Amino acid sequence: MASKIISSVLVTGSNRGIGFELVKAFLEKANPPQHIFGTCRNPTGAQELNSLATKHSNLHIIQLDATNQESIKAAYKAVHDRLKGCGLNMIINNAGIFVGKNKELPNEERMIVTFKTNTIGPLIVTKEFLPLLKKAVQESPDEKMSCSKASVINISSELGSITNVPDMYSMFPAIDYRCSKVALNMLTRCQSESYKKDGILCVVIHPGWVQTDMGGPEAPVTEQECVTGIMGVFEKLTEKQSGSFLDWKGNTIPW
Amino acid sequence: MASKIISSVLVTGSNRGIGFELVKAFLEKANPPQHIFGTCRNPTGAQELNSLATKHSNLHIIQLDATNQESIKAAYKAVHDRLKGCGLNMIINNAGIFVGKNKELPNEERMIVTFKTNTIGPLIVTKEFLPLLKKAVQESPDEKMSCSKASVINISSELGSITNVPDMYSMFPAIDYRCSKVALNMLTRCQSESYKKDGILCVVIHPGWVQTDMGGPEAPVTEQECVTGIMGVFEKLTEKQSGSFLDWKGNTIPW
Repeated sequence: MASKIISSVLVTGSNRGIGFELVKAFLEKANPPQHIFGTCRNPTGAQELNSLATKHSNLHIIQLDATNQESIKAAYKAVHDRLKGCGLNMIINNAGIFVGKNKELPNEERMIVTFKTNTIGPLIVTKEFLPLLKKAVQESPDEKMSCSKASVINISSELGSITNVPDMYSMFPAIDYRCSKVALNMLTRCQSESYKKDGILCVVIHPGWVQTDMGGPEAPVTEQECVTGIMGVFEKLTEKQSGSFLDWKGNTIPW
Repeated sequence: MASKIISSVLVTGSNRGIGFELVKAFLEKANPPQHIFGTCRNPTGAQELNSLATKHSNLHIIQLDATNQESIKAAYKAVHDRLKGCGLNMIINNAGIFVGKNKELPNEERMIVTFKTNTIGPLIVTKEFLPLLKKAVQESPDEKMSCSKASVINISSELGSITNVPDMYSMFPAIDYRCSKVALNMLTRCQSESYKKDGILCVVIHPGWVQTDMGGPEAPVTEQECVTGIMGVFEKLTEKQSGSFLDWKGNTIPW
């Protein structure tokens, strides 16, 4: 079955790592989206993203700091204006931080900083952009839930699986990161309930342990493998998966 | 089998609700603890707790605000001095808040306030009191994990179960509360891994939907039923349950 076309997608944290690779993968699709909004905190410093935008007129770089309400509002306005009355099909809340690589218990500050970016960010970004997702739903009222209709994709981590804590705790205690990601998983399942009536699909994805700045060079999965996998998962998502926790190959991860 | 004696226990948020009932239940045990530390943010305003303390010399009221590091340090010193070189068998992180009873999505402020009390509080309180828990372990090196040896009990909520979101979401969206409690569940499982080698049991308990100020009068479970149930669960906890999520009857709740 040929996949339906995703007309517009927004990716947060798109200046590097998985966010940047996702933007590239969308650009390289046989039927690329008309509008790809690559957002990041500091567009001026996003050299690779800027270089890509000079070659692709459908890539729009937008300033967005997911921890700053004013920045999110300004980004919404920029996206809204660019879409000229059309809806937005996909939001990929990819921006995230992993502050403490040491094995000490986190302090309050580290817990809050991580929670703000990794959990509250996706909450308030999605809330702000909701009108554009709803508009996308109105554009294809008969279509079933899918990424090409309207979807919220939250990029989490297997480290947010409570069930799997014993498997990797000694290697990655990362309590601040784990707490923020399990809360993001909870948020996603709540979003899937909140937005079910609106026809918006919500899924949380573990991208694998990837060779990014965050994952480090010893990670087993390359950025390309990860993103090829995730793009394949997007194609297959239906309402059955809304509210679930999947890895980059489409396998379900226990909560 | 006769239950072993719990020599000392600390309960946060003990001025009312489940915390207060837990203090009463410990006082009423056939073999009550030698030291019950009933902590709360404002001891002066805790009339019922103060009234109880006039009748029971083993109840010590201590100021402790789980969101304030200085307050936690002062409480640690007070407990440490009172124990005169002995360890502390149990910490019950019961203090919690439920800010928004309306069904609107929470804003950033509500997310952070709730996360600070319900998640970071139990993290930093437990971290501070760890030396006293370890001391308790040294006092009974041959005993297996139990509440009478050394334990951390975190009072969570079934609303922190991601699996069960669809059951009660329309009635209780409470995303801020749910995110804080699922993060507390994650924290508990991490604590159980961190402190396994030390012999400290860590469990997270859902007290039921209880007729407290938080639960409201329409709740199906009375404070007494809940606390009788929880006290029964304490008696039976072994290392098998460490890191698990139990309700007030001892049944496992899915993550």
